[in-house]
Amino acid sequence: MPEIREIPVPVDAPAPLPEPDADDLRLETVLGALSDPLRLEIVQRLLLEREDFDHTCGWFGFDRPKSSLTHHFRALREAGVIRQRQYGLERRSHVRTDDLDARFPGLTTLVAAWTPPAD
Amino acid sequence: MPEIREIPVPVDAPAPLPEPDADDLRLETVLGALSDPLRLEIVQRLLLEREDFDHTCGWFGFDRPKSSLTHHFRALREAGVIRQRQYGLERRSHVRTDDLDARFPGLTTLVAAWTPPAD
Repeated sequence: MPEIREIPVPVDAPAPLPEPDADDLRLETVLGALSDPLRLEIVQRLLLEREDFDHTCGWFGFDRPKSSLTHHFRALREAGVIRQRQYGLERRSHVRTDDLDARFPGLTTLVAAWTPPAD
Repeated sequence: MPEIREIPVPVDAPAPLPEPDADDLRLETVLGALSDPLRLEIVQRLLLEREDFDHTCGWFGFDRPKSSLTHHFRALREAGVIRQRQYGLERRSHVRTDDLDARFPGLTTLVAAWTPPAD
């Protein structure tokens, strides 16, 4: 079983960008946001490989246009899967593990166990 | 915790309609098929309220055009969430609980615990 890394929020972290409250998370919306291999990879790597509290989209090393990545990260934030904070010019993300585990127990484990498509 | 009903396959059941093998199920595809309130309701009711091995779309009592329902049931079958069999003029469905539990442990529990949107 892959281990999900927990790193506490730094005391000087900026406020989160707008996002749904934990009580307002909807399973159908969260599943829709995760129904894409790139988004599953983003969430899985944030769960399993995080080195800091949150990470920029550059940290992932995706060979994709920045505008496309921005779209996917925003979709994950608006569904309530990730939390994003603005650090100056940089936007950093981490998974809302506590909120997802409270509302949808087992979901982060499913994402952590996901196998990327062979291609 | 709602109880998922298991009913064994009748010996005289017709062969299943075309569907992906359990080994070929993809989490991103299954989550996409479930990212809709009507489809979550179909799967949840098949899990929790089933009275027979499988059920026609009429059993659910949805106030929707048959063509729309046919589309949603087919999407669930093609993603590997439900199995469908043709009984004469009727098509009946049940959830592939064993396959989903083997490939994506916890997913059927998440669907069983889903709360439909208030409307």
